[in-house]
Amino acid sequence: MNILYIIDLIGVTVFAISGGLTARDKQLDVFGIAAVAFITALGGGTLRDVLMGSTPVGWMVDLRYLIMIAAGISVSLMFGERVRKFRRTFFLFDSIGIAVFTVLGLQKALALGMHPVIAVMMGMISAVFGRVTRDVICNEIPLIFRKEIYALACLFGGTIFILLRYLDIDSTINILVTIIIIFALRSLAVRFKWNLSVFS
Amino acid sequence: MNILYIIDLIGVTVFAISGGLTARDKQLDVFGIAAVAFITALGGGTLRDVLMGSTPVGWMVDLRYLIMIAAGISVSLMFGERVRKFRRTFFLFDSIGIAVFTVLGLQKALALGMHPVIAVMMGMISAVFGRVTRDVICNEIPLIFRKEIYALACLFGGTIFILLRYLDIDSTINILVTIIIIFALRSLAVRFKWNLSVFS
Amino acid sequence: MNILYIIDLIGVTVFAISGGLTARDKQLDVFGIAAVAFITALGGGTLRDVLMGSTPVGWMVDLRYLIMIAAGISVSLMFGERVRKFRRTFFLFDSIGIAVFTVLGLQKALALGMHPVIAVMMGMISAVFGRVTRDVICNEIPLIFRKEIYALACLFGGTIFILLRYLDIDSTINILVTIIIIFALRSLAVRFKWNLSVFS
Repeated sequence: MNILYIIDLIGVTVFAISGGLTARDKQLDVFGIAAVAFITALGGGTLRDVLMGSTPVGWMVDLRYLIMIAAGISVSLMFGERVRKFRRTFFLFDSIGIAVFTVLGLQKALALGMHPVIAVMMGMISAVFGRVTRDVICNEIPLIFRKEIYALACLFGGTIFILLRYLDIDSTINILVTIIIIFALRSLAVRFKWNLSVFS
Repeated sequence: MNILYIIDLIGVTVFAISGGLTARDKQLDVFGIAAVAFITALGGGTLRDVLMGSTPVGWMVDLRYLIMIAAGISVSLMFGERVRKFRRTFFLFDSIGIAVFTVLGLQKALALGMHPVIAVMMGMISAVFGRVTRDVICNEIPLIFRKEIYALACLFGGTIFILLRYLDIDSTINILVTIIIIFALRSLAVRFKWNLSVFS
Repeated sequence: MNILYIIDLIGVTVFAISGGLTARDKQLDVFGIAAVAFITALGGGTLRDVLMGSTPVGWMVDLRYLIMIAAGISVSLMFGERVRKFRRTFFLFDSIGIAVFTVLGLQKALALGMHPVIAVMMGMISAVFGRVTRDVICNEIPLIFRKEIYALACLFGGTIFILLRYLDIDSTINILVTIIIIFALRSLAVRFKWNLSVFS
């Protein structure tokens, strides 16, 4: 689906900007900012492809991803903190990006013949792992392991996708429903500060 | 060998519990605990398979590993610190797990035509790398790079395995001997606080 | 080219020594020093090969790399800080190593049919990523993301290589020119303390 591809490219850009800003906060230099932006944007899809043996990894055969990331890096270098003013728009695209990454990762895994349970995991990894790597490189315990709950939203949305697929729901509708679920869950979680803390 | 497979599954579960407990200590949330448990249990085998190009990685084609890990995660969530009361049992299974991981990794590498020296390394990586990743994610310098010496036990045991194999010792006996050596070395090392410190 | 192969082996050894010394500074034990030396020396090439799907990874099919690394580890264990007395020689080989790693990574990527832009990235990753991993494992934000600028020298040299290749310059001359450029850029950057800091 063409529209998914376009959202995927936008999502990658937004992820790159968010990675670049984190790297700025850590006082990294220009190369460090570019590297962390890159890893944040593509780390998830890269791990997914490497685990499934689908190499060379996706972004290595479609340069548009690198171009969009270069744009994202430029934005975080030029505008820096001022980008955060648009944090609502940012959050919007970020959440849509997460949802689309999940669906695309899931579909790719299914297309490669993975078991549905594994496919759901691959979808989640696509959406989540870039940030995990970003945090580990920036010497932080991954935020998503402590507070943010969007990985669960990805797993839940992915499961719904698989269920609807068994029920032979039209694929376009299924994709749309899944994206909306992930988007909504994540937004609600942030809004109402849902968390999964074991300790109160 | 069927019994090795069963011990492998038990080992994975024990590794998952130990990963989950470490994550709890770090105050991670439920997803973080699950993720770290998962990485601790499967990180070693995953790296081994990726390096050898044996993808999709093992656990992606045999869901029993995920099921056992889910069980391990549940245990560390429900019982938490109380699990540590059984630390002798725990240590027993952990050490057997390490030994079995080494042998299975080694055998897989040999089956894929790797040089014996590389196969010994792959065996050690299978047993060790999950914990290395766990520690790096939890923002610690890997324990095994500082104090624990079981990687050396794995390398030593693996070398014995290769030697006995050249001497055409029966494979079952060879596996048993190797497992006992690794298990014994590790237990002795912990008991007598052997270490490899360069600084006294 | 035979001479490149020899320099590659020397570069790997120098990288191993530098990794081993960093690990000593962190008070790691013998296994930790060996592991970090190993990862510093081979991490870059390993990531490059895994991303491109060229597995088993290079060093797994040519044991000479492991032998050279073992030598490098012995040097950092035996001589420790005293190695630093030769820091000029060290820096010389290190810079040549970086340049050669870049060219070899780049050539391998082109040989596997990668797009030139991707090939330049693969060259840089070969030269840089081992140290990034070393720093992450040693619980530091990668130095190369904060101060050192040699990644940029690798990218610049790689780009020159691609350009000269389009102009049908003789391959040996091209390799030589590229290595000299990377070497010179890095040396100048260190000498004059060039940096890419966003913050003054």
